[in-house]
Amino acid sequence: MVGLKVFGQPASTEVSRVLTCLFEKNLEFQLIRIDTFKREHKIPEFLQLQDPSGQVTFREGDLTLIDSRKIIRHLCDKYADQGNKKLYGNGSLEKASIEQWLQAEAQNFGPPSAELVFHLAFAKPLGKEPNMSIIEENEKRLSDILDVYDQRLGKNAFLAGDEFTLADLSHLPNTHYLVTRCERGKKLFSERKNVDRWVKEITNRESWKKVTEMQNEHPGPLEK
Amino acid sequence: MVGLKVFGQPASTEVSRVLTCLFEKNLEFQLIRIDTFKREHKIPEFLQLQDPSGQVTFREGDLTLIDSRKIIRHLCDKYADQGNKKLYGNGSLEKASIEQWLQAEAQNFGPPSAELVFHLAFAKPLGKEPNMSIIEENEKRLSDILDVYDQRLGKNAFLAGDEFTLADLSHLPNTHYLVTRCERGKKLFSERKNVDRWVKEITNRESWKKVTEMQNEHPGPLEK
Repeated sequence: MVGLKVFGQPASTEVSRVLTCLFEKNLEFQLIRIDTFKREHKIPEFLQLQDPSGQVTFREGDLTLIDSRKIIRHLCDKYADQGNKKLYGNGSLEKASIEQWLQAEAQNFGPPSAELVFHLAFAKPLGKEPNMSIIEENEKRLSDILDVYDQRLGKNAFLAGDEFTLADLSHLPNTHYLVTRCERGKKLFSERKNVDRWVKEITNRESWKKVTEMQNEHPGPLEK
Repeated sequence: MVGLKVFGQPASTEVSRVLTCLFEKNLEFQLIRIDTFKREHKIPEFLQLQDPSGQVTFREGDLTLIDSRKIIRHLCDKYADQGNKKLYGNGSLEKASIEQWLQAEAQNFGPPSAELVFHLAFAKPLGKEPNMSIIEENEKRLSDILDVYDQRLGKNAFLAGDEFTLADLSHLPNTHYLVTRCERGKKLFSERKNVDRWVKEITNRESWKKVTEMQNEHPGPLEK
């Protein structure tokens, strides 16, 4: 088997999405982290990137992928028989539902979440002024989206049905930062009953707990 | 300027020796860490290496060095005018004295120290049985060496004279593990007055404190 290599910092939402999938699939891999030290001070990864989304690079032999959602689909397709086999569904119907919510995450949930993570949790530690109008606008957008999620999660345990899949997994990184790093973000999730239950369930996955342990070793920007 | 790259884990004594020198010289560099995850479990760097000495690789353009003591000499020769300019002496007499103690560290102090670090501090957390006869033999060897050091440090503040140099720096990684990870190791240093003063002084360097912070992020084997 060709070695799987992930380049990036676990604090990045892109990287943590990929790591969670690798742990769910029980795959062997190498994580390669590069830190730059300049004149005695480590340059925080987040400062280099100016954005909590960070970057991830995945290599497997000649294959290189740089989009976390492409990488997790690839891992589930190629290693269908390893680890969690339900992660990307087993039939075309299941897969279509997972795919629908994966796209909802990437297109609807992801952008306002990332804006809120940055302005509510990371702007200040990075010495930047949080932009209140951006916060309010994206809070409104995310609220509307979470209303739809709450309805959906009133009918099913997870987004794509009764199993934890890539659809749920893909929401973990931004959800985790919103829920753990800022009161205003936390409230968006906790005030919706079904969303609240779902967040507790998915953040309690062993795979995700391993990733947050890795993040805590390198916590990224934190208010002191 | 060609980028300086260090490959390895800060917990390794070889790596931490190089990092301390880079911080003393106030040089910009990249630290590249590779962690292997196998079936959900991270393989501790120490388990891969079976030895607290670990490995370090240094790259600067086409130059590759893998011996920490060669690397620190190279950094001081090449970047003589940067950061701490006294680290490798300024005249041939100073340099000869530093060189003498650098060699004492590599040949006399280092081997019994590394054995004691392994058997007193790391064997148990790695699931290995500490070897009592190896401990006793190396404790005796190190005691004899530290008697010579104590005499020397009664005459001078540091090993090679009145300044902190590579001679002292090179002793930091093993000394730190012995002093902080095991009572028996700590006693060897603390019961010698001049050695005790010297250990307190050199472990209090800003450069070394940065390195121990990095080690604490990835602490290597620890008894739980």
